[in-house]
Amino acid sequence: MQRHFDEELLELKGELLRMASLAEESIAKAVKALVERDGRLAQNVIDSDEEINMLEIEIDEICLKLLALRQPIAKDLRLITSAMKINSDLERIGDLSVNIAQRTLDLLEEPLLKPLLDISRMAKLAQKMVKDSLDAFVRQDAGLAREVCRRDDIVDMLNHQIFRELLTYMLQDPRNIHRSVDLILIGRHLERIADHATNIGEDVFYMVQGRTIKHHIEEKMAESKK
Amino acid sequence: MQRHFDEELLELKGELLRMASLAEESIAKAVKALVERDGRLAQNVIDSDEEINMLEIEIDEICLKLLALRQPIAKDLRLITSAMKINSDLERIGDLSVNIAQRTLDLLEEPLLKPLLDISRMAKLAQKMVKDSLDAFVRQDAGLAREVCRRDDIVDMLNHQIFRELLTYMLQDPRNIHRSVDLILIGRHLERIADHATNIGEDVFYMVQGRTIKHHIEEKMAESKK
Repeated sequence: MQRHFDEELLELKGELLRMASLAEESIAKAVKALVERDGRLAQNVIDSDEEINMLEIEIDEICLKLLALRQPIAKDLRLITSAMKINSDLERIGDLSVNIAQRTLDLLEEPLLKPLLDISRMAKLAQKMVKDSLDAFVRQDAGLAREVCRRDDIVDMLNHQIFRELLTYMLQDPRNIHRSVDLILIGRHLERIADHATNIGEDVFYMVQGRTIKHHIEEKMAESKK
Repeated sequence: MQRHFDEELLELKGELLRMASLAEESIAKAVKALVERDGRLAQNVIDSDEEINMLEIEIDEICLKLLALRQPIAKDLRLITSAMKINSDLERIGDLSVNIAQRTLDLLEEPLLKPLLDISRMAKLAQKMVKDSLDAFVRQDAGLAREVCRRDDIVDMLNHQIFRELLTYMLQDPRNIHRSVDLILIGRHLERIADHATNIGEDVFYMVQGRTIKHHIEEKMAESKK
């Protein structure tokens, strides 16, 4: 029975990685569609979300079945409950990619406002955070997981910078307004993708170490002991 | 032992309801601060988030302990895993209230752009969704849970309407831009609060009925049988 359970956990990990690669692909395609002004690719992101949604339900069911039938403890229990949370974060990342694709379709109705350098940079950072948080999951690497969480501040800063710049574009010329708002919302979506990667990093850290780094709780406890 | 376990489940429910009332209070205060232009109340929302964050960690620990020590099955298992998910949604609702409060502080630096009728209406709907999803949880009411999920479309429509109206304000006068963007983002935050209430409704439905209504899967399966 133990060997069988190990196989089931392997299957769960495999499905979660499939989910992760779909989510990563979804961000990558949404950003490519935005930068290269490719409406067909944006539509493809929207159409592909269904697969991610169905896989979310499937993974959730695998987790519940394992909890019910195997009654796991300690590390196995943490693996399964973390998988449930990571699964939900990946599904939301898929939704946010769809939001970016929808804004992209809206943007294609007008000429390019400006070269999308900062948005591209932010997108690359967010994508890398998702990728690394899943690598940390696969390699059970608490150090990498924690490091991913720390990168969240850079994405927040970039988003704030993009926001301020787009405000000035709008003030310069009312014809820039519609496109600027679209880009501000895309910035927000990317920031939220980075938030979800941070959640995944926190879950991986918990899974490996058995203690939480959520809400900077460690710093706060260290602070309170001073 | 059984009686003891029942008490533990009751305690878990109690903590989750405390979390829910904090989250509801947080939305209510954020919206009141916005509408009444009350900077102190907005700051209070931001400061109070810490309590929600700490309670999230505490509830998560209770759930994991119950899973590990009690190895629950069937309905009890669904209750605990649903509690974990609802807990996470409530924490995000707290974060979104903080985001609304931050935007409110930003808005207070300029005079009122327009009476906030639609935003208030949207806020009331979103708040009611959160409240009803938790009532559905307490009363194990799958019908109410499903009904909450259906209301999500109305909030989405209202948000879209607010968005279009604010775009016209920006086009009329560049001095409206900064405040309009703040209000657009507040609309988005409220829409996301409604999304989280929908997630809670879906989790309650699953908890009670043992089958999912996520991603409109029922309609799709009925469709495929035609």
